Amino acid sequence: LKSKFLYTGIRVKNLKESVDFYTKVLGMEVAGRSDIPVAKGEVVSLRSENGGFELELNHYGKGSRFDKKYNPGEGLDHLAFLVDNIDDFVRKAEKLGHPVVAEMKTEKSRWVYIEDPNGIWIEIVQ
Amino acid sequence: LKSKFLYTGIRVKNLKESVDFYTKVLGMEVAGRSDIPVAKGEVVSLRSENGGFELELNHYGKGSRFDKKYNPGEGLDHLAFLVDNIDDFVRKAEKLGHPVVAEMKTEKSRWVYIEDPNGIWIEIVQ
Repeated sequence: LKSKFLYTGIRVKNLKESVDFYTKVLGMEVAGRSDIPVAKGEVVSLRSENGGFELELNHYGKGSRFDKKYNPGEGLDHLAFLVDNIDDFVRKAEKLGHPVVAEMKTEKSRWVYIEDPNGIWIEIVQ
Repeated sequence: LKSKFLYTGIRVKNLKESVDFYTKVLGMEVAGRSDIPVAKGEVVSLRSENGGFELELNHYGKGSRFDKKYNPGEGLDHLAFLVDNIDDFVRKAEKLGHPVVAEMKTEKSRWVYIEDPNGIWIEIVQ
């Protein structure tokens, strides 16, 4: 049996703040919104230029059995995004309140991390 | 500035166990392996049938500044995979030691969750 990796769903504390981050800082587009009554959840799907692969933002309302205390944890190490120019990106992200929190360098490449509104690490590569 | 969502990187406690799960249970393929000396990390990239979108398994060795106590947390809500037949899949996954941990039903659809070796929820849709 084969499978197809469809999307990555992250949990967010505040939908508006996270939609703002992924659309304004990372340039993604809202592809859809829906309610999942069975989980008392609300979902926003985001897409960037990648053959339709989606990032899904999941928000659970009061009374949902998934509305637990939020801890980013180590399950999700990071989400990676390719940008045209890393220096331009860093300047813009900083202006929008998301400064670089870590920088990595090897002989061949350099990449940086910023944090999303929930503390999830976002890798930026050029 | 636009960006391209490149891959999702999860952290794993044991590379072999996680590679086994994503290849044997979910049918992904190993696309590459590399060491990241700057983070004392080891990385395995996995691909399924999705225009090259990757799942990256990150393992941090002793002495790495990222080798913290592992907690799946709520940052990563779930990873979603499309399969041909949900019942066939469930039977096979159970046999491989990954029983269904939750099932959701609406009028239109039905989807289930299993857990990966680190407790990350994997959504299976048909």
